[in-house]
Amino acid sequence: MSFRIEKDTMGEVKVPADKLWGAQTERSRNNFKIGAPASMPLEIVYGFAYLKKAAAYTNCELGVLPIEKRDLIANVCNEILEGKHDDQFPLVIWQTGSGTQSNMNVNEVVANRAHQLAGKVIGEGEKTIQPNDDVNKSQSSNDTFPTGMHIAAYKKIVEVTIPGVKQLRDTLNKKAEAFKNVVKIGRTHLMDATPLTLGQELSGYVAQLDHGLRALENTLPHLSELALGGTAVGTGLNTPKGYSKRVAEYIAEFTKLPFVTAPNKFEALASHDAVVETHGALKQLAVSLNKIANDIRLMASGPRSGIGEIIIPANEPGSSIMPGKVNPTQCEALTMVCAQVIGNDVAVSVGGLQGHYELNVFKPVMAANILQSAQLIGDACVSFEVNCAAGIEPNQEVITKLLNNSLMLVTALNTKIGYYKAAEIANTAHKNGTTLKEEAINLGYVTAEEYDEWVKPEDMVGSLK
Amino acid sequence: MSFRIEKDTMGEVKVPADKLWGAQTERSRNNFKIGAPASMPLEIVYGFAYLKKAAAYTNCELGVLPIEKRDLIANVCNEILEGKHDDQFPLVIWQTGSGTQSNMNVNEVVANRAHQLAGKVIGEGEKTIQPNDDVNKSQSSNDTFPTGMHIAAYKKIVEVTIPGVKQLRDTLNKKAEAFKNVVKIGRTHLMDATPLTLGQELSGYVAQLDHGLRALENTLPHLSELALGGTAVGTGLNTPKGYSKRVAEYIAEFTKLPFVTAPNKFEALASHDAVVETHGALKQLAVSLNKIANDIRLMASGPRSGIGEIIIPANEPGSSIMPGKVNPTQCEALTMVCAQVIGNDVAVSVGGLQGHYELNVFKPVMAANILQSAQLIGDACVSFEVNCAAGIEPNQEVITKLLNNSLMLVTALNTKIGYYKAAEIANTAHKNGTTLKEEAINLGYVTAEEYDEWVKPEDMVGSLK
Amino acid sequence: MSFRIEKDTMGEVKVPADKLWGAQTERSRNNFKIGAPASMPLEIVYGFAYLKKAAAYTNCELGVLPIEKRDLIANVCNEILEGKHDDQFPLVIWQTGSGTQSNMNVNEVVANRAHQLAGKVIGEGEKTIQPNDDVNKSQSSNDTFPTGMHIAAYKKIVEVTIPGVKQLRDTLNKKAEAFKNVVKIGRTHLMDATPLTLGQELSGYVAQLDHGLRALENTLPHLSELALGGTAVGTGLNTPKGYSKRVAEYIAEFTKLPFVTAPNKFEALASHDAVVETHGALKQLAVSLNKIANDIRLMASGPRSGIGEIIIPANEPGSSIMPGKVNPTQCEALTMVCAQVIGNDVAVSVGGLQGHYELNVFKPVMAANILQSAQLIGDACVSFEVNCAAGIEPNQEVITKLLNNSLMLVTALNTKIGYYKAAEIANTAHKNGTTLKEEAINLGYVTAEEYDEWVKPEDMVGSLK
Amino acid sequence: MSFRIEKDTMGEVKVPADKLWGAQTERSRNNFKIGAPASMPLEIVYGFAYLKKAAAYTNCELGVLPIEKRDLIANVCNEILEGKHDDQFPLVIWQTGSGTQSNMNVNEVVANRAHQLAGKVIGEGEKTIQPNDDVNKSQSSNDTFPTGMHIAAYKKIVEVTIPGVKQLRDTLNKKAEAFKNVVKIGRTHLMDATPLTLGQELSGYVAQLDHGLRALENTLPHLSELALGGTAVGTGLNTPKGYSKRVAEYIAEFTKLPFVTAPNKFEALASHDAVVETHGALKQLAVSLNKIANDIRLMASGPRSGIGEIIIPANEPGSSIMPGKVNPTQCEALTMVCAQVIGNDVAVSVGGLQGHYELNVFKPVMAANILQSAQLIGDACVSFEVNCAAGIEPNQEVITKLLNNSLMLVTALNTKIGYYKAAEIANTAHKNGTTLKEEAINLGYVTAEEYDEWVKPEDMVGSLK
Repeated sequence: MSFRIEKDTMGEVKVPADKLWGAQTERSRNNFKIGAPASMPLEIVYGFAYLKKAAAYTNCELGVLPIEKRDLIANVCNEILEGKHDDQFPLVIWQTGSGTQSNMNVNEVVANRAHQLAGKVIGEGEKTIQPNDDVNKSQSSNDTFPTGMHIAAYKKIVEVTIPGVKQLRDTLNKKAEAFKNVVKIGRTHLMDATPLTLGQELSGYVAQLDHGLRALENTLPHLSELALGGTAVGTGLNTPKGYSKRVAEYIAEFTKLPFVTAPNKFEALASHDAVVETHGALKQLAVSLNKIANDIRLMASGPRSGIGEIIIPANEPGSSIMPGKVNPTQCEALTMVCAQVIGNDVAVSVGGLQGHYELNVFKPVMAANILQSAQLIGDACVSFEVNCAAGIEPNQEVITKLLNNSLMLVTALNTKIGYYKAAEIANTAHKNGTTLKEEAINLGYVTAEEYDEWVKPEDMVGSLK
Repeated sequence: MSFRIEKDTMGEVKVPADKLWGAQTERSRNNFKIGAPASMPLEIVYGFAYLKKAAAYTNCELGVLPIEKRDLIANVCNEILEGKHDDQFPLVIWQTGSGTQSNMNVNEVVANRAHQLAGKVIGEGEKTIQPNDDVNKSQSSNDTFPTGMHIAAYKKIVEVTIPGVKQLRDTLNKKAEAFKNVVKIGRTHLMDATPLTLGQELSGYVAQLDHGLRALENTLPHLSELALGGTAVGTGLNTPKGYSKRVAEYIAEFTKLPFVTAPNKFEALASHDAVVETHGALKQLAVSLNKIANDIRLMASGPRSGIGEIIIPANEPGSSIMPGKVNPTQCEALTMVCAQVIGNDVAVSVGGLQGHYELNVFKPVMAANILQSAQLIGDACVSFEVNCAAGIEPNQEVITKLLNNSLMLVTALNTKIGYYKAAEIANTAHKNGTTLKEEAINLGYVTAEEYDEWVKPEDMVGSLK
Repeated sequence: MSFRIEKDTMGEVKVPADKLWGAQTERSRNNFKIGAPASMPLEIVYGFAYLKKAAAYTNCELGVLPIEKRDLIANVCNEILEGKHDDQFPLVIWQTGSGTQSNMNVNEVVANRAHQLAGKVIGEGEKTIQPNDDVNKSQSSNDTFPTGMHIAAYKKIVEVTIPGVKQLRDTLNKKAEAFKNVVKIGRTHLMDATPLTLGQELSGYVAQLDHGLRALENTLPHLSELALGGTAVGTGLNTPKGYSKRVAEYIAEFTKLPFVTAPNKFEALASHDAVVETHGALKQLAVSLNKIANDIRLMASGPRSGIGEIIIPANEPGSSIMPGKVNPTQCEALTMVCAQVIGNDVAVSVGGLQGHYELNVFKPVMAANILQSAQLIGDACVSFEVNCAAGIEPNQEVITKLLNNSLMLVTALNTKIGYYKAAEIANTAHKNGTTLKEEAINLGYVTAEEYDEWVKPEDMVGSLK
Repeated sequence: MSFRIEKDTMGEVKVPADKLWGAQTERSRNNFKIGAPASMPLEIVYGFAYLKKAAAYTNCELGVLPIEKRDLIANVCNEILEGKHDDQFPLVIWQTGSGTQSNMNVNEVVANRAHQLAGKVIGEGEKTIQPNDDVNKSQSSNDTFPTGMHIAAYKKIVEVTIPGVKQLRDTLNKKAEAFKNVVKIGRTHLMDATPLTLGQELSGYVAQLDHGLRALENTLPHLSELALGGTAVGTGLNTPKGYSKRVAEYIAEFTKLPFVTAPNKFEALASHDAVVETHGALKQLAVSLNKIANDIRLMASGPRSGIGEIIIPANEPGSSIMPGKVNPTQCEALTMVCAQVIGNDVAVSVGGLQGHYELNVFKPVMAANILQSAQLIGDACVSFEVNCAAGIEPNQEVITKLLNNSLMLVTALNTKIGYYKAAEIANTAHKNGTTLKEEAINLGYVTAEEYDEWVKPEDMVGSLK
C-alpha cells in the first residue's frame, strides 16, 4: 500500500495514496476505532456538499472568494452529490461530538479533488484550494455540522418518511371505505363489546396517521432553520455581511426545500432541540404504527384457533419446522422498527440534554438516530403497505359468527329497559351458555318482537352524531 | 366504623357509611391495593365533573334527561369543582386501564350526593339519580376517561406549564437584553473559544424556550379533541343525535377552553396519541431546560475554584458539614424535574403503543404522567425564575480576566493571515505560556498595531448578519 | 397562625410554632414550591432515622458524643420510626439534588424534639442538641442521603418487591403443576402452532420470574454498600477513626439487614450506579410481568368472540355502559405498573449519568423512582396474584376445540414424510377447509392408521429432553 | 444478470445464479426493503454456524443424521466461521420477528454450498442436503435464532466489552495509584468543597467500572442458557431424546464458552429477558462511563479559562475555524456511545415486553441492539484508554492554586470551633474577598498557629476509616 504525506496544524500524516482525504480524516480514522467500519451517514456528507457549494457561492457573491475557486468547489460538491466519491468518507459516528472531523473530511476531499480538477496531482504543489481557508471559508464545524444534519434530516423526512406514511395511510383509508359496511364485533379490554364496522376500525388508524403526519409537519419549520452563519460560537465571526441569510437562500435553491437561516444562532449550535422535536414526532408515529400493526395481526390471527376476522397476504413460508405456516411478518418488521425508533428517541434526548455552553457535542449521534428513524419508518410503512395492508380482506364468515355470538349486543337495550336489567340478561345468558334473546324473553323484560327490533347490530354502529 | 349496603350488577358491597361513593368504588378499593393511598389525580376528577355536567346539559337539551335531574347532576359537579368532595375519590391510578372505576366513582358520588341534595338520605329509598342510567347517560368509561384526561391535561398545560415556562423565558429575555454588552469568552467542547456576549448566550436559552413553547402549543389542537360521544367503542351507541358536538360545546363553555369533538372517535378511544404528542413537547422542554440549568450552574461554579462568571442568588446554607457553602440548588431541582419528565415520556410511549382493538387500556398511567410532567415543568420554571434566574448577575471581574486570557482570540486573524499561521501563533503562545500578541509579533506575522486593531473581543461578537 | 424564630447560618426564619422543624426546612418549603405538597418519601426519612441513631451510637462509642446526647438522639429516631412524626417532614423531592434539606429537616426535627424530651420548650434556651454539630456529627448530606436511600430501597425490595413477586411466582408454579396435563394449541407469531400444555406455558412465566428474582438479588450487594463515613467528598473528613465500618454495623444491627460500609466512598457519593443497577433489575421484572399479564388476558379474552382458553375471576362490573361485561382488570393494572417502571428506569439513568465531580446531585429523584418502582411491582404482583392468578382455570371445552382444529399438528409428520409433503397436506387442508387427516390420506402420504398413530397432540408436548 | 430457480413450499423463486442462498432468502430480500442494505449482524450468522454444526453432530450422534451429511454441514459451517461466505447473508434486521428468514438463509446457504462440496452444481439434481430436513433437523427458527443471538452476544461481551472496559479500568487504576498524593480541591454541586486527592477521584471511577463489570458478569449465566432443543414452541417436538443437553455441550465445545441448555425452553422462546438483563448491565456501564468522561473533560477544560486541573492528550486539531484549538474528543465519542446504549436499552425493553404466547417476535431488533451496544462500549473504552486516559496528567500548578483558594478548607475547623463559627469565617472571607486565615484570626476564633496546625489540606484527605 502506498501513501502520501498530508499536513495539518499538528504536523504530517501518512494517507493512503489513492484516497482524496487529508491529514485530519486520517487522524480520525486512527483515533476513533469504534464500531468500525464507516458509519457516518452519507446523507450527512451530501448535506455538507450542498452547504459547501452554497457557502462558496455566497462567499463569491459577497466578494471574499474568487469565482474560479467557487466553481471548483461547486464542481466537486456536485460530484459528491452524484455519488461519485462515496468511498472517500470513511469516518464513524463515534468521533468528536461536533462532527469536526467529518467537516474536515469534506473540506479535504473537496480541496484535493479540486486540485485534480484544476489539472494538478494531489500532494504536489500548493493546494489550489485550501481546506480551511477556502472550502471552510465563513464556516465552522459548529455551524456546518448542524446545517448538514438539518439538510439531511429534512430531506429524509420529506422524501422518505412522509411519502411512506402517506402511502400506508391512503391504502388504509381505501380499505376503510371498502369495508364500511362490514359490521363486526368490537372489543374493549380484549373482551367482546358492542359492534362497529371494520371500516370504522380502520378509520381510526387513518386518523392516527393523519395526526402523526400533522405532528411531524409541525416540526419542520424548526428543522428548516439552519445554523450556517453562526461559525464558531454563534456570533458569525469571520463571515461577510449578509452571509447567513444568503447562504440559506442558496441552500434552499440547491435543495429545493424551504430552508431559512436560524433567527438565533446560539440556540442552533448549543442545542439541537429541532432534532429532539422532529424525532419526538417520529416516535409518536412509531407508537401509532405499533398499535395498528398489533391490531392487524391480532385480527388476522389463526387461521383456525385465533381471531381470524381478516385475512392478510401470505408472503413467505412462515416456519422452518411447521409446514404450511404463514405469519404476519410485515407486522413484525414494522413493530420492530417501532421499538427501535422509541429507543432512538431516548438516545436523542440524552444527547440533546447534555450540551455545555456554546456547543452541543452530541451532534453525530443525534444525526445518526434521526436519519435511521426517518428511514426506517418510511421504508417499513411502504413495505407494510405493499406486502400487507393492500391485501387485507375481511373473513366475512368468521366476522358474522363472532358478531352474532356476542353478549354485548345487550347494550342496545340500555335505553329501553335500563342498565341493570340488561346486565341481568347478559349475565344469565353467559351463565347458561344461551342467547341473549332467549334470556331476554325468559326474564320477561322484552318480547321476541321487541328484541328483534331493538337489537340489530347494523343499527348499533351508527354514524357519529 | 359503620357501613351501609350499596349494590351493583354483581351484588351487594359494604361501604363506609360516611362516604358518598358506592359499590364499584368500594370494589376497586379492595381489589387494587397498589401504591396506596389514593393516587388518581384530582384533576381527572375535576375533568369528569366538567363532562358530567356537560353531558347532563346536552342530554337534557336533546330530550333524554329531565331538567330536574340535569340540575341535580350539575349542582353536584359544581360542588366537586369547588373542591368540596376531594376526599370522596379514594382510588388509585393502578386500577382498570380504562379508568372505569374512577368513572363509576364519579357517577356514584354524583348520584349519592344528588340524593342528599334532593333531601333524601343516602341508602334509603330508590336513588333519585341513577349512577349508570342518569349520571353516565350517553357515556361510557371509554369515552369519558379520555375526555376527562384531555380536559385535565389541557387545563394544566395552559394554566401551569405555559405560564411557568413563559415567566422564565421573559426573565431570561430581560437578562439577555441587560447583559447584551457583557463580552465574555465563549466555550465549545468545554474549551476556550471565541468571545460572545452574556446576552447572546442567554438569548440562546430564550430561543430554546420559544421553540419549546411553540412546539407545545402545536400539540394543543390534538389535545383539544374530546372522545365524548364515542361511548363504548367509538360508534356513539346510545347517544342522542347531535350529542357529540353539543357536549363538546358545553365543555368548552364551562371550561372556557377551545375543546371540540374529536372528528374520529375510534382513534380517540383506541389510542392516546394526543397524550403522546403533548408529552413529547413536554419532554422537549425538559431537554431544553436541562441544558439551560446546567449551563447556569457551570457558569456560576466556584466561588473561587470554578468558572465563576455569573453570580446566582444564595438561598440556603448549602451544606450540613461545609460551613458557608452555597449551591445552585434551583438548577438541581430543575434538572431533577427534567430527568423525571424524560422518564415519564417513555412511560407514556409504552402505554400508548400497547392498545388492543377498540380501547387503549393504559389511560390512567398516561394521564398521571402527563399531569405530573406538566405540573413539574411549570412549577420548576417558576421556582427557578423566582429564586435563581431573576437574580443572575455577571461577575465582571472574572469575565474580563477569562476573556483576555483566551488564546482563541487568534481566530480574528484568520481572515488576515490565514488559518495556519494563526494556529502557529496560538500553539506557540500555549506552549510558552505567553500572550497571543507577544507571539504574533515574535513570529513576525503582524505588527503590534495590526494586532491591536484586528484582535478586539468586542468586535468579534458582531450582530448576526 | 403563630410562629417562632429559628436561625441558621444565613439568619432568622419564621417557622410555624407547632412544628418541630427549623430554619433550613422552612427555607426549603419556601424556595421549592414544585409539585407540592410533600413528596419526599417517608421511607427516606426512616432511612435517615436509622442512620442518625447509628451515627449517634458510633460517635458515642468512639468518644466524640456524650452518652446523654446519644440517647436523646436515639429516642427521637425511635419515635420517628414509630411513625410519630410523619407530619414533620414537609419537603418535596424537587429540592437540592443532594437532599441536603431533607437531611437538615431530620437534623432539625431530632434536635427540637430532643429539646422537648430533655424537658425544654422549643425555641427557648440553647438547643440541648445541635442539628449540625450533634445530630449531623461525623456526617454530611452527601453521605447521609445516599445511605438513607440505600436503606430505604433495600428494605422496600426485601420487604415488598421480592415477597410480592414470589407470591405470584409460587401461585403460577402451582397452577403450572395443576395444569400440566392440559394439552392445548401453541401459538407463535399469534398463529396456530404445535401443541403444548397449559402447565408448560405457565412454567415459562415461572422461569421468567425466577430469573428476574435472581437478577434482582444479584444487585443487592451493591445496594447494601453504605456511603456513610465519606462525609463531604468521600474522604471521611471529620469522622473519628473506625467510624465508617462501625456505623454500618450499627445500621445492619438496627435494620436487621446486611448493610456494609462501601469500600470506595468516592463512588458512593459521586455516582449512584447501585440504584441504576437495582432499578435495572426492577425494569427487567416489569418487562417480564408485562408479557405474562398480556398473555393471560389474551388467553382469557372473549367470553364468546375471543380466545377464551382460560377463565379468570370476575371481580367487578367491567363497563359503565355495557351490561354484564367483565374485564381483565388486574392485567391492566399490572401492565400500567410495568409502563411506569420502564419509564422510571430512564429517569434513573438520566439522573445517574449526570453527576459532576464528587457528587451526584440527582439523589432525591433517583430515590423516589426506585422506591415507587419497588413498591408498585411488589403491590401489583400481590394484587394480581390474589385477584387474578389464583383463580385461573382452564376452559377445557374451548381448549379441546381449538387444539383439534389446528393445522400445525401436521408437524408431527415431518420426521415421517418430510417437511415438504407435510406442508402440502397443511396447505391443502387450509385451502379446502378440511381436516389434516382427510388430506393426508387423499394425497396418499399416510394411511388413516398411520395418521392416528403419528399425530397425537398429547405425544407432541413431550417432556424436554 | 443470470438467475436460477429455487423452490420452497410456496413455489418457485428466481435467485441470482452466483449466490448460494435459496428461495426463502430471496423472498425476504424482496419483501423487506427496509433500511437496506443487509443489516442482520454477521455475528448472528456466525452464531448460527456454530449451532448448525452442533446440531449436525448431535443429530448424528443420536442416530438421526448420517455421518456424511454431518460432515458436509460441519464443513460449510466452518467455512462460514472463517468468513468465506459473508456476502451470502443479504437480509435485514427488519424481517420476520422470529428471524426465520435468517435461519432459512443459513439453511439454504449450507445446503447449496454442501451440494458444491459434494461435487455437484447448485440447482442441478436433488439437493445433497435439504435445508429443512437436514440442516434444520431437530430445530426451529424459534429455538435457533435465540440460540444464535445468545452465542453472538455472549461472545461479543467476553471478547470485546469486558476486555475493553477492563483495559480502561486498569489504566484508571494505575493513574489513581500514580496520583494518590496529588491533593486538590473537591467539588460538590459544582461548587468548591473540601479537598481530596486526584487519585481518590480516579479511584471512584475504578470502583464504578468494577461494579459495572461485576453487574455484567452477573448476567452471563442467564445469557449462557440456550433455547436450542425447544424447537417450535418449547416442547422439543421432533428432537431425539437427549438432544437439548448434548447440543449445548457441542456448542460449548466449539465456542469454548460455558453454554448450557436452558432449563425452561418456554421462557427461552417466549421471552428474551436474558437479553434485557444483559443489556441492562451494558446500560449501567454507559451511565458510569458518561459520568467518568464528563468529569474528565470538565477537569481538563480550558486551557486558560476553564478548570484545567488535568491535561489530556491533544490528538487532533480541534476546530476548522479556531486555530490551535484542542478538544476532549475521546470524551465526546464515549459519551455519544453512552447516549446510544441508553437509547438501545429502551428499544430492547420495548421489544422484550411485547411477546405473545409462545414466541417473542422482536428477536432481530433485540439482537442487533445488544450487539451494537456491546461492541460500542468495548471499542469506545479502548479508544478512550489509548487516546485519552493513558495520557492523563495533573496540572500541578493549577491544582495547587485552586486548592489554596478554597474557602471550604474551613470545614477542618468544625470539630474545633463548631459549624456556626466556621461558617461565619467562610462567609466573611467570601464577602471581603480575603483569606480564611485572615478572617479566622480577625474574628478571634483561632490564633495563627492554631489555624496553621488545624487547616492542612493534606490532612483533610485522610485514608478512609
